[in-house]
Amino acid sequence: MKFYDGGRAPSPRRVRIFLAEKAIDVPKVAIDLAQQEQKSESFRALNPLQRVPVLELDDGTVIAETMAICRYFEALHPDPNLFGRDAIEIAKVEMWNRRIELGLYSAVQAIFRHQHPGMAKLQVPQVAQWAEINKPRVPEFLELLDSELAGRKFVAGDKFSVADITGLVALDFMKPAKLDVSEQYKNVRRWHAELSARPSAAA
Amino acid sequence: MKFYDGGRAPSPRRVRIFLAEKAIDVPKVAIDLAQQEQKSESFRALNPLQRVPVLELDDGTVIAETMAICRYFEALHPDPNLFGRDAIEIAKVEMWNRRIELGLYSAVQAIFRHQHPGMAKLQVPQVAQWAEINKPRVPEFLELLDSELAGRKFVAGDKFSVADITGLVALDFMKPAKLDVSEQYKNVRRWHAELSARPSAAA
Repeated sequence: MKFYDGGRAPSPRRVRIFLAEKAIDVPKVAIDLAQQEQKSESFRALNPLQRVPVLELDDGTVIAETMAICRYFEALHPDPNLFGRDAIEIAKVEMWNRRIELGLYSAVQAIFRHQHPGMAKLQVPQVAQWAEINKPRVPEFLELLDSELAGRKFVAGDKFSVADITGLVALDFMKPAKLDVSEQYKNVRRWHAELSARPSAAA
Repeated sequence: MKFYDGGRAPSPRRVRIFLAEKAIDVPKVAIDLAQQEQKSESFRALNPLQRVPVLELDDGTVIAETMAICRYFEALHPDPNLFGRDAIEIAKVEMWNRRIELGLYSAVQAIFRHQHPGMAKLQVPQVAQWAEINKPRVPEFLELLDSELAGRKFVAGDKFSVADITGLVALDFMKPAKLDVSEQYKNVRRWHAELSARPSAAA
């Protein structure tokens, strides 16, 4: 089994944190995104969509997409459970994972890709207006997240889940996108600090 | 239990097709998106993100997000299975569901929202350049999808899954976005025709 990893990129980090929480060790192959190694012929043979992360099984089966890789390991190593156990838990974890992806992660990603000078060669064309119209989405979502986190320890309930991993990675992604979590979002800051203090955050 | 539905909008339709495939009947509440009923105070109390679909359980629990609602029903009514049974099936269904969402659905949605005159009041501002840069993504993804579907009946394998539902809805969404599936994509057209012929497609 091989895990094709992407250094500081946020998507492969979601998988690394997930694996660290489950204490699963998978051999890693570093893909150099700055050198556009994901566009090489050999990598395109693995994933024609030219994106990391990718998991390659020993029989050659390829699993791409962050959440698909996480669900593969969840099925094989169900403890600790990170996707929920019963119907309501499963639904709440998926709801918050999706909400963070759509409401925060995708906005931060749009701002990073379409505004950061270092992305000019990779994101062609950069659409400045697209970065701008995504900016108000970030505090809008943080406002909702803050009010939700007032009442519970983790985003989908009282248990740590994959939705917290998505939240941690989305919040950390704000730094290279030159965005701040304003001080008024005390519950988001408390949650971010707690997630950052878990050993898995270093993954 | 109540399902807050959104007429012709693609996301609630994904849930309706999912329920039809499982032969589950849920009482529906129509939300008039053209009248922006999803922005009303009463709907915002259900889902502050002001989006359909939403499922409200009898105890008041609210489940938002298309895939969260589908997973809730999958956990309660596992047959027919639509998310995969073992680790590899689960991973492949998630991979293809995500690939279609990110590679096709999101591009079609961007083109529809940022180009369709009927969306001018709902999508503020419309960014014409954003619609334009999403256009080449559609045939690019159809090219990949077509080569994959040459070798199998359904997108994630030989069994119908939720990824096929996402595919059907994404392809049907191309019509209001004024996009065509070019004739060269014979396998995509065959797959689309087969999915459209299932009774669930009318949901």
